[in-house]
Amino acid sequence: MKALVYHGRGQNSLEERPKPKIIAPTDAIVRVLHTTICGTDLHILKGDVATCAPGRILGHEGVGVIEQIGGAVAAFAPGDHVLISCISSCGRCEACRRGMYSHCEAGGWILGNSIDGTQAEYVRIPHADTSLYHIPAGADEEALVMLSDILPTGFECGVLNGKVQPGSSVAIVGSGPIGLATLLTAQFYSPADIVMIDIDDHRLEVARQFGATHVVNTMRDDAITTVRNLTGGRGVDTAIEAVGIPATFELCQELVAAGGIIANIGVHGHKADLHLERLWSQNIAITTRLVDTVSTPMLLKTVTAGRVAPQRLITHRFTLEAIPDAYDTFGRASETHALKVLVTP
Amino acid sequence: MKALVYHGRGQNSLEERPKPKIIAPTDAIVRVLHTTICGTDLHILKGDVATCAPGRILGHEGVGVIEQIGGAVAAFAPGDHVLISCISSCGRCEACRRGMYSHCEAGGWILGNSIDGTQAEYVRIPHADTSLYHIPAGADEEALVMLSDILPTGFECGVLNGKVQPGSSVAIVGSGPIGLATLLTAQFYSPADIVMIDIDDHRLEVARQFGATHVVNTMRDDAITTVRNLTGGRGVDTAIEAVGIPATFELCQELVAAGGIIANIGVHGHKADLHLERLWSQNIAITTRLVDTVSTPMLLKTVTAGRVAPQRLITHRFTLEAIPDAYDTFGRASETHALKVLVTP
Repeated sequence: MKALVYHGRGQNSLEERPKPKIIAPTDAIVRVLHTTICGTDLHILKGDVATCAPGRILGHEGVGVIEQIGGAVAAFAPGDHVLISCISSCGRCEACRRGMYSHCEAGGWILGNSIDGTQAEYVRIPHADTSLYHIPAGADEEALVMLSDILPTGFECGVLNGKVQPGSSVAIVGSGPIGLATLLTAQFYSPADIVMIDIDDHRLEVARQFGATHVVNTMRDDAITTVRNLTGGRGVDTAIEAVGIPATFELCQELVAAGGIIANIGVHGHKADLHLERLWSQNIAITTRLVDTVSTPMLLKTVTAGRVAPQRLITHRFTLEAIPDAYDTFGRASETHALKVLVTP
Repeated sequence: MKALVYHGRGQNSLEERPKPKIIAPTDAIVRVLHTTICGTDLHILKGDVATCAPGRILGHEGVGVIEQIGGAVAAFAPGDHVLISCISSCGRCEACRRGMYSHCEAGGWILGNSIDGTQAEYVRIPHADTSLYHIPAGADEEALVMLSDILPTGFECGVLNGKVQPGSSVAIVGSGPIGLATLLTAQFYSPADIVMIDIDDHRLEVARQFGATHVVNTMRDDAITTVRNLTGGRGVDTAIEAVGIPATFELCQELVAAGGIIANIGVHGHKADLHLERLWSQNIAITTRLVDTVSTPMLLKTVTAGRVAPQRLITHRFTLEAIPDAYDTFGRASETHALKVLVTP
């Protein structure tokens, strides 16, 4: 089969690889219908993800059709259309029993990381019963690719952890795909104001179309002043970090109101300053999270009911044969205006 | 009347001051029966609290008897015995309606800070109806002085924010009066393990007597190793910072398990490093809080029911005439082994 293989820092290639086989009785083999590329795949290519060894097939998102199941798989049968979760979970360990699937002792984020992933014609999914979801008949399968990772990430790490409420004020720092997924799902809870903050006018224009009530380009305008003017000097109830660098996390500390929450989504490579000399008395919470995908069934219902249209994040389409072009387009997003690129074997 | 007056960095004195008068109809004048000294009073004496001007009568803790009430006070009458909250709250502003009394727009921590306090024979309490509590007949009034600040602070900022649960593991960094108050109230929730961490053997011995299951003196032993051995390598569910310096806050980041909480109680004067490069994926929460005293009625019931004995924190007793000695004893706690000093006019 064709697969996109990582070969160490800066190197990947599309090549022929053997079709995956059932290893454990809880495995399923899925024929991939659609997959996509994540910012994390670019991190891997930069050599930032030590757990991902050269030779690995990348990708942790996708929808597909069950091709084969192991003897212990009960919830799925060959021919079923399924959504693949970026998080594999055994459903039995202490972390899973707490709904913290991202820290599953036998799973977590392993797909396209420590085991072969979805940027291929076929993929082996471990713990299939608890790591796949049935796709309802008639659903938009392209849209559901956004439910493998990006939509639950924005929703769980940003919206749920940030406790977005009716009438509340929200600032989202970073208007890339994750920030926009957060913006889309924040609107489930009818906040009064959603301020999107970025340095790219195109992304901020998309944010306006997606429902932002205010946008701030920090190359031109001061986000702190804008937010304070909007909130009577108090700051926002929820500040969401969707970039992953110290400067944007530190900005969130300036934006959050007393009693508010800073919900971190960004993948950070460096420590940040925490201004406890001011924040110790401010009754705030700071949360971090690797997406658990506990909200996937809920998000599936919102998509099929038309409450959210995550396909709006898809800007480009490629065949699997053209996945090197897809990486190029996604990697030069500031020029190509790519958000999510759909890849179809 | 006699009162302890702050006169700028390093200077305070016991002197004669006029008895306070009703200013607003919501005020009450309280004759002080017992008061105490807080670590924050020492911060004021170091010149660290800019809102506290020279000439101020210090103190924000105490119990007393209502001497006089303003025309709008409905819940109290002269002769009532009352517990004075360190937080004054109007009960009407948005912060108060959210139960965030510490950020009351017309109150908060003002007593012995921006208005005259309790280290005197009499004190004016603003917003009396929502800032005082009736003392049940027969209650130990000395014990209740601990409910003005220290017990709700440990309980709300540490135990409640840290979500201490039956069977959970807790580390409390700092075994001073606040850490010990946290230890006492953490036991309401029956955690499996409570590890107390300090550099003072005497305080750790007190912690053992107060219910700590493990103690670590970091001058001799490594807290991280101890906690990892105790928790199967995972870390604690709740790490409570009860010191207020970067090193202890950073230690909490090493102690907390995935899915856990770092609850900050300490008053910080400096920023700290936040290791987001490791913590971004660890599903943790960090909380800060200035005590709101929302739990005071609950704590009153636990004390009168004998579920907690906060009088165990009282190590020394002084008359108001001897309050300079009380400050000296409290300020040299490492030599005198003082925890809380009771001062009685």
